[in-house]
Amino acid sequence: MYYPEPISKLIDSFMKLPGIGPKTAVRLAFFVLNMKEDVVLDFAKALVNAKRNLTYCSSCGHITDKDPCYICEDTKRDRSIICVVQDPKDVIAMEKMKEYNGLYHVLHGAISPMEGIGPEDIKIAELLRRLQDETVQEVILATNPNIEGEATAMYISRLLKPTGVKITRIAHGLPVGGDLEYADEVTLSKALEGRREL
Amino acid sequence: MYYPEPISKLIDSFMKLPGIGPKTAVRLAFFVLNMKEDVVLDFAKALVNAKRNLTYCSSCGHITDKDPCYICEDTKRDRSIICVVQDPKDVIAMEKMKEYNGLYHVLHGAISPMEGIGPEDIKIAELLRRLQDETVQEVILATNPNIEGEATAMYISRLLKPTGVKITRIAHGLPVGGDLEYADEVTLSKALEGRREL
Repeated sequence: MYYPEPISKLIDSFMKLPGIGPKTAVRLAFFVLNMKEDVVLDFAKALVNAKRNLTYCSSCGHITDKDPCYICEDTKRDRSIICVVQDPKDVIAMEKMKEYNGLYHVLHGAISPMEGIGPEDIKIAELLRRLQDETVQEVILATNPNIEGEATAMYISRLLKPTGVKITRIAHGLPVGGDLEYADEVTLSKALEGRREL
Repeated sequence: MYYPEPISKLIDSFMKLPGIGPKTAVRLAFFVLNMKEDVVLDFAKALVNAKRNLTYCSSCGHITDKDPCYICEDTKRDRSIICVVQDPKDVIAMEKMKEYNGLYHVLHGAISPMEGIGPEDIKIAELLRRLQDETVQEVILATNPNIEGEATAMYISRLLKPTGVKITRIAHGLPVGGDLEYADEVTLSKALEGRREL
């Protein structure tokens, strides 16, 4: 027994988090011991509240503390566009941009035969159901630009073709502030393919 | 408002920990949402318990959930040796070695004029008090091998000289598994200085 039990339990808890190994866990646990008690209590409360009070929006699947979420509920939003993303974190990324004013649909994953995730394991059926409502005119596929994301976008676009809804995919190309010299071949080829007249 | 309140509070809490920036905090918070509820509750409990139930041993200053700590209380330990370290984590490091069977004294810091930490700010007076007891025959100074640690060791050794107790300093030299080629000059010079006959 190296550590008194309360601290070894805290170290174990920290080690369950991603990217935190034994040494970091010890450092964090000892840091907590030197924090003010009310700060630690707030931390503990935040953990419990986040777990207990957060659910997924029954409409779009975004993480929320009330259902429907504040985006689905917002009457100022353009209900004719749905942006399809893989993860609630992607919604946050889109919202930070402050330029998109439509709704979202969170798939909670991407099709990945390698990991045994098929179309029925992510929220594609829910997306189809939302499209039965005639107000939706465009579906923007904003899944990640990797193999799984592309496969998912491809699958959804084929599935939605018959509905007649406009289906778009976010552009691939060079990231702003990037360097042509260091761009990989696939990105560069996509950037060339997607070139636009000025 | 990008995040629902419960999760933004959790993100804020994670960001108070050392080495955890905004992106890691978001990743950890979302990870917590996907953890099982009882695991999250255990985490919250561990935080509160660690903060509330841990104190410092009134004798050696090591972190403990009961006073005196399990080391000071252990009658099988050699009470004639005290190993002086800077931090409770150093006690753990020594204990992991499983070769030292004496007692400890945790200074909770080191003398550092740069940071305004003087001898009276660390637990040197407490060490002197423990030495009034005649049982202690050796004090091992195991402060860190850096400027502050050396200064502290030097200060304590001069302070304890008159008491007649044997004072030793842990050896400096090349770390086991290290490489002579990559050793810095100071370490190499200390290793040479501390050479022993075989």
